[in-house]
Amino acid sequence: MGVENRARLPGEFELIRKYFAPLAAGAPGSLALEDDACTYRPPDDTELVLTADALIEGRHYLADDPADLVARKMLRVNLSDLAAKGAKPVGYLMTMALGPAIDEAWIAAFTSGLAHDQKEFDIPLMGGDTVATPGPTSLSVTALGVVPVGRALRRTTAAPGDRLYVSGTIGDGVLGLRVLRRELPGLTRSHAEALADRYHLPQPRLALGRALLDGNLARASMDVSDGLVGDAVHIAEASRCGLVIHADRVPLSAAAEQALADDLELLPTILSGGDDYELLFTAPVEAAPKIARLAANLSLPITEIGEVTNRTGVTVLDRDGVEIRMTQGGFQHF
Amino acid sequence: MGVENRARLPGEFELIRKYFAPLAAGAPGSLALEDDACTYRPPDDTELVLTADALIEGRHYLADDPADLVARKMLRVNLSDLAAKGAKPVGYLMTMALGPAIDEAWIAAFTSGLAHDQKEFDIPLMGGDTVATPGPTSLSVTALGVVPVGRALRRTTAAPGDRLYVSGTIGDGVLGLRVLRRELPGLTRSHAEALADRYHLPQPRLALGRALLDGNLARASMDVSDGLVGDAVHIAEASRCGLVIHADRVPLSAAAEQALADDLELLPTILSGGDDYELLFTAPVEAAPKIARLAANLSLPITEIGEVTNRTGVTVLDRDGVEIRMTQGGFQHF
Repeated sequence: MGVENRARLPGEFELIRKYFAPLAAGAPGSLALEDDACTYRPPDDTELVLTADALIEGRHYLADDPADLVARKMLRVNLSDLAAKGAKPVGYLMTMALGPAIDEAWIAAFTSGLAHDQKEFDIPLMGGDTVATPGPTSLSVTALGVVPVGRALRRTTAAPGDRLYVSGTIGDGVLGLRVLRRELPGLTRSHAEALADRYHLPQPRLALGRALLDGNLARASMDVSDGLVGDAVHIAEASRCGLVIHADRVPLSAAAEQALADDLELLPTILSGGDDYELLFTAPVEAAPKIARLAANLSLPITEIGEVTNRTGVTVLDRDGVEIRMTQGGFQHF
Repeated sequence: MGVENRARLPGEFELIRKYFAPLAAGAPGSLALEDDACTYRPPDDTELVLTADALIEGRHYLADDPADLVARKMLRVNLSDLAAKGAKPVGYLMTMALGPAIDEAWIAAFTSGLAHDQKEFDIPLMGGDTVATPGPTSLSVTALGVVPVGRALRRTTAAPGDRLYVSGTIGDGVLGLRVLRRELPGLTRSHAEALADRYHLPQPRLALGRALLDGNLARASMDVSDGLVGDAVHIAEASRCGLVIHADRVPLSAAAEQALADDLELLPTILSGGDDYELLFTAPVEAAPKIARLAANLSLPITEIGEVTNRTGVTVLDRDGVEIRMTQGGFQHF
């Protein structure tokens, strides 16, 4: 398989040598991508955590998004999945189906973005495949991490009585996308930039995930990628329990606060828009003091936004305790 | 991420529940795909072998190929990579970007093909992601296997003086594709069907790969996917040595023999066409008797087709010892 007959691109092997092999330097088992498989041995007493994601040009990112940011977001989205498990990232494999618009400059920028975040998160490229497609570019990443054996945090293990926590702030990613679409012209420039940055460059909460695992603090955990409420539904369903979210406790950035003050109708978007890449987790009541100390140590807000019940589904309450009704795939604000 | 707004398909979560979760039943760490990551611990004294491949509709398979065969070939191509390393397959992760033509019947047939070969090769689905694309369907698989620590067979380790071997027969895959394109009308029906079968359903040489590793028989090994000569170039380059291939020793099936007898100009196609998924390996001269016994035990032809030299590149000789000249990306027959 190769990128054949593409005047704007070097051949597959030249692409590998020039752009991809340097990214595999930190993975001895990859043999600089000269082989078609990579070997890896997890450290003693650990097991692997594996997660895979697909990204499509025009759907998960825009064709004219800077290629280095597309690459970095792709990695960070997968690292966020590992963070939710409490895993230490090990590396990743990547397949690319390159669309007709891809030229060498795009590859150069994309791989420079990979190199940047590989260094930041200490992960090598471990293998992959590059092919051509007449359709939009299609990217696929399999990320590897390790956890102590049997200790991976799960979304299936929430227990009634647990408190529900979320890290950081919610809604910035989806508002950042609206900023980029010029749909929020009323924001100050610094707020608009802050939101756009959050959309382009999520911060995988790796230190938090590992601390939750190491300290045995979290009962269930996942990362917020589909939207706070939608992902809460995933925890509720996987754990066979119910969740209550107090909408007024959901932590917002100053920029999101301003956007919401300008337009109260943005609340459902903020709560269900996605692209947050914060950790949503449940913990027993007695863990609260330790979680507060952890937040201080990490300089990362961790906010209690609700609780786990022995009912089913997710209930979102407004500040007066009145339910905001959910509909499938999102919810309606009454 | 999901398969949104697709009238012909159930929603992502329904697809997972109905078609994909049953495929993960053999992977306890996948939690029936209710989580977004899978855990896996390699057995003691083993390490992982990881390989990734991308397949594009219309390029690596045809839109009207039977979906169950597309699925099975996709798995087998990846298993062939593991076979070349001497690895025991463990499982796989898969991402799918589904094009507009995909309907539920296609998904049902595709996943039934996966189920069939998962059972045949004893591998579960360990995780993945399903998204929609307006372009052709794009599939990506990351396959996992295990080998004893440090023992994976490599393509980088051929040594001058080694003999060069290939399993099975060469050229059937590419001739099968020509049969399917109705370009070989002169073949008998049984020969045509045999070739088409080889194109649709390669046989990953897992038992051979593991026996080569266990018996310490092979020095370098890879699977023939890009074509015998092209892949020989990969071994030569990765091992910094030269290879000589005697074209008249290359093993052909009865069907390929007939096709070649009908049209001698098919020789370059056979030698460089690809889609063989046989193992190409080098071994010290003294391993020959053990390799012959292994071929008998496995009921699989293993043919010595050439040797490793201390020069560079790949030289193909005809039956008179005259060189058949190579050109980039294939070769010319003089």
